[in-house]
Amino acid sequence: MQRKSQFNVGLICRVLGVLILLNGIFMFTCLPFAFYFGDGDWKALVQSGVITVIAGGFGMLYAQKMGYEQVFKKKDGYIIVSLGWALMAFFGSLPYIFSEIQASFADAYFETISGYSTTGASILTDIEGVGKGILFWRSLTQWIGGMGIIVLAVAVLPFLGIGGMQLFVAEAPGISPDKLQPRIKETAKRLWWVYAGLTGVETILLMTGGMSFYDALNHALTTMATGGFSTYNDSAASMSPYIQYILIFFMVLAGTNFTLNYFFFKRMFKAIWKNEEYKYYLGIISLATIGISSVVIYTTDLGIEKAFRDALFQVVSIITTTGYVSADYTAWAPFATMIVFVLMFCGGMAGSTAGGVKIVRHIILFKNSFLELKRQLHPTAIIPVRFNDKAVKGGITFNVLAFIMAYFLVFGIGILVMSALGLDLLTAIGAVATSLGNIGPGVGTVGPVDNFAHLPDMAKWVLSFLMLLGRLELFTVMIIFTPYFWSRF
Amino acid sequence: MQRKSQFNVGLICRVLGVLILLNGIFMFTCLPFAFYFGDGDWKALVQSGVITVIAGGFGMLYAQKMGYEQVFKKKDGYIIVSLGWALMAFFGSLPYIFSEIQASFADAYFETISGYSTTGASILTDIEGVGKGILFWRSLTQWIGGMGIIVLAVAVLPFLGIGGMQLFVAEAPGISPDKLQPRIKETAKRLWWVYAGLTGVETILLMTGGMSFYDALNHALTTMATGGFSTYNDSAASMSPYIQYILIFFMVLAGTNFTLNYFFFKRMFKAIWKNEEYKYYLGIISLATIGISSVVIYTTDLGIEKAFRDALFQVVSIITTTGYVSADYTAWAPFATMIVFVLMFCGGMAGSTAGGVKIVRHIILFKNSFLELKRQLHPTAIIPVRFNDKAVKGGITFNVLAFIMAYFLVFGIGILVMSALGLDLLTAIGAVATSLGNIGPGVGTVGPVDNFAHLPDMAKWVLSFLMLLGRLELFTVMIIFTPYFWSRF
Repeated sequence: MQRKSQFNVGLICRVLGVLILLNGIFMFTCLPFAFYFGDGDWKALVQSGVITVIAGGFGMLYAQKMGYEQVFKKKDGYIIVSLGWALMAFFGSLPYIFSEIQASFADAYFETISGYSTTGASILTDIEGVGKGILFWRSLTQWIGGMGIIVLAVAVLPFLGIGGMQLFVAEAPGISPDKLQPRIKETAKRLWWVYAGLTGVETILLMTGGMSFYDALNHALTTMATGGFSTYNDSAASMSPYIQYILIFFMVLAGTNFTLNYFFFKRMFKAIWKNEEYKYYLGIISLATIGISSVVIYTTDLGIEKAFRDALFQVVSIITTTGYVSADYTAWAPFATMIVFVLMFCGGMAGSTAGGVKIVRHIILFKNSFLELKRQLHPTAIIPVRFNDKAVKGGITFNVLAFIMAYFLVFGIGILVMSALGLDLLTAIGAVATSLGNIGPGVGTVGPVDNFAHLPDMAKWVLSFLMLLGRLELFTVMIIFTPYFWSRF
Repeated sequence: MQRKSQFNVGLICRVLGVLILLNGIFMFTCLPFAFYFGDGDWKALVQSGVITVIAGGFGMLYAQKMGYEQVFKKKDGYIIVSLGWALMAFFGSLPYIFSEIQASFADAYFETISGYSTTGASILTDIEGVGKGILFWRSLTQWIGGMGIIVLAVAVLPFLGIGGMQLFVAEAPGISPDKLQPRIKETAKRLWWVYAGLTGVETILLMTGGMSFYDALNHALTTMATGGFSTYNDSAASMSPYIQYILIFFMVLAGTNFTLNYFFFKRMFKAIWKNEEYKYYLGIISLATIGISSVVIYTTDLGIEKAFRDALFQVVSIITTTGYVSADYTAWAPFATMIVFVLMFCGGMAGSTAGGVKIVRHIILFKNSFLELKRQLHPTAIIPVRFNDKAVKGGITFNVLAFIMAYFLVFGIGILVMSALGLDLLTAIGAVATSLGNIGPGVGTVGPVDNFAHLPDMAKWVLSFLMLLGRLELFTVMIIFTPYFWSRF
């Protein structure tokens, strides 16, 4: 007698099929650029697109044939999101393999997962030599991954229904998607509209600074995703101050909870003003910028404006985990470099497209550690952490603490594995910190002016896994590897 | 109208006076060595001893005159322990200042607090050139600090009474002194007997290996304290394999919960065998040793026995936070160095003389993070961490998490401050990690074959504070700087 699987295999296949199909359709949107700039890579894009669409279609057909109930369970959600992302990266890597770059599978997968996870670490050594169609695909992977393709699917597809909630929570960055939860479909739609709208506005503003439409669109896509892929070899270093300030402004927006950005459109300024995380976010950016620019002004002869702009740009780029580079922060005085390194563990706001630990977790953490001292003096009193003027439930505090522990645990193991693969200490630390935090540039030989091409293949696979872990905030992926997940009870 | 202080000032003065007096008496025990070896430093020891005894006496007289109730409150305990340690380090630094070394106050304080906190970081560049009396004082500070002078006071002084419990908990390393709590005086006595007994046995065993009585006693004092001050310039590097193995054996004992060592004397092997932390302690030592010796065998031509011994010695020295050095671990292949660095954050068992985070905290942490994944799947179930086959109370888990957060927070701030003082990144990381963990050697320019003399004075003061913070396990000191501590309610 055949045992019925505890998972809703039919539904899982159906959703995965849809995601892959969507992915294939996105590939075709790169074709106009390939044709317009007349590069030979249009064939690679067509081949990849066709393979991907067919694979997606097969999944959907198989699901149809198999039949399934329209019921999601929690575990189905974890499988769809984890497996979905891994598969999307597989199909997304095809254009790099088929194109004139002729990337190895390890390189192509690394570049793709670096895109979807909005990390922005690259194995390409000459970006400006790559075909414009492929380069657009590269930027597009970040844009798709930024707000999340599953959030998109929840927004536009009718069939996911209420079950979409499970998927949404498993993919969306941050602790929980605020109070907007019950009407999940509305929320997803609203987020994507804000996201797309801001991308459009940034494109236009960048063009007013003299950028071509192509470059402006690419940078807008990767800014709003806090991705950081650039179409220039030297990232943002040669851009005009005007354009750099535009990028800074939109990076800050991209690292903000998108619900707040929506409130801004709706002129609900009071709700924005009352948000505690937002104050810390802007406060940390200000403090770090003041700290670094003081050091840079004192130790170089760059001039005040340039030093301030370099400091602000790098601070915003790292804290929002975007990863654009306008100055080599590893060449600064050690104290300034250290601030940047510490910011790598900070992350943007929950509910933004930024990666990393996220500020709200740090706030809860700090408050809890501080209150623990009070608890020592009053052992019988119940003293909860307060956030946004409300008591945080013990379960959430536990979750945050467990998350940060898991984060540093993975960080530690990652460094050990990287050194075992032969990387020097500083490079190992930098590569793991930047991959896990979905940032882009690291320190050591993977610093802001280097890239990841020279790493051994095995290191690229490990870093790819870390990028995925980081983007899906650890638990969504890790949970699948526990015995609890596979037991029926 | 004079407001009555919320603190029991009289009693605080009395206890501090006694601690300082005890400290002065210990100084006189160094005199025989100064006389025997005929060095000129006996005067420095007499001067320091007299000043210290008089200062202690004054404190006691003042308390007598002022009058006090025989009642301890929690806050009194925190003040006595924090202030007591800071004052002891002040008086303890006098011998270095008065002696032929003519150390600056910053250097002398650093060396003393490095002693009491059993860190073992040193500003002395030529240890063998220092007078034997002073050198014995140096080892003695570690021995006093290892088990804790307050634990000693609780053991030998009648007047502390039941209030000693508060002091004991604030000073003793680890989460709680096991079930032995109720009979605190007995416990303290028992611990000090085991401590002194093992020190004696080790002295004799080291002499069988050809060490002089003086060197054997010094090394036994600093082994059992997990301190790591040596009387040799090259620490343990030139010692015979036999002596190195003896040091390894006693370092392992010193990093073991002393209650377990007591059980061993009482032949209560079953209680030892059931202790979960002990298994992890020995397990981590074995794994790290296998890992490092494999790498060292593979990358050098040292031979199996020497590679194994070097690996085991360094692993045990770092995990127990002793800090003896028999090989330069920063010269190993990066992977092996990394293992040593990670061990710096491990620490020995709770209830041992070792510093650092302590293994039990890591166990609770790991289990909690792992269980959080289970909690995600079953959000309504209450799933506590289990340790030694018992459910750990939520409050304790919270405390452990808050401790580790505070530890890494202090670590991060420490690195920032050190880089602001001009240290390079690696040295800053190494110096802070080794000071906070009470280990001794770091990485960078404060590695196993260097010392701390070249650091700027300000850096020495900051590191001194970190050593104190680490030895008193953060909260005891930090709590004094919170507003909760100074409010009456």
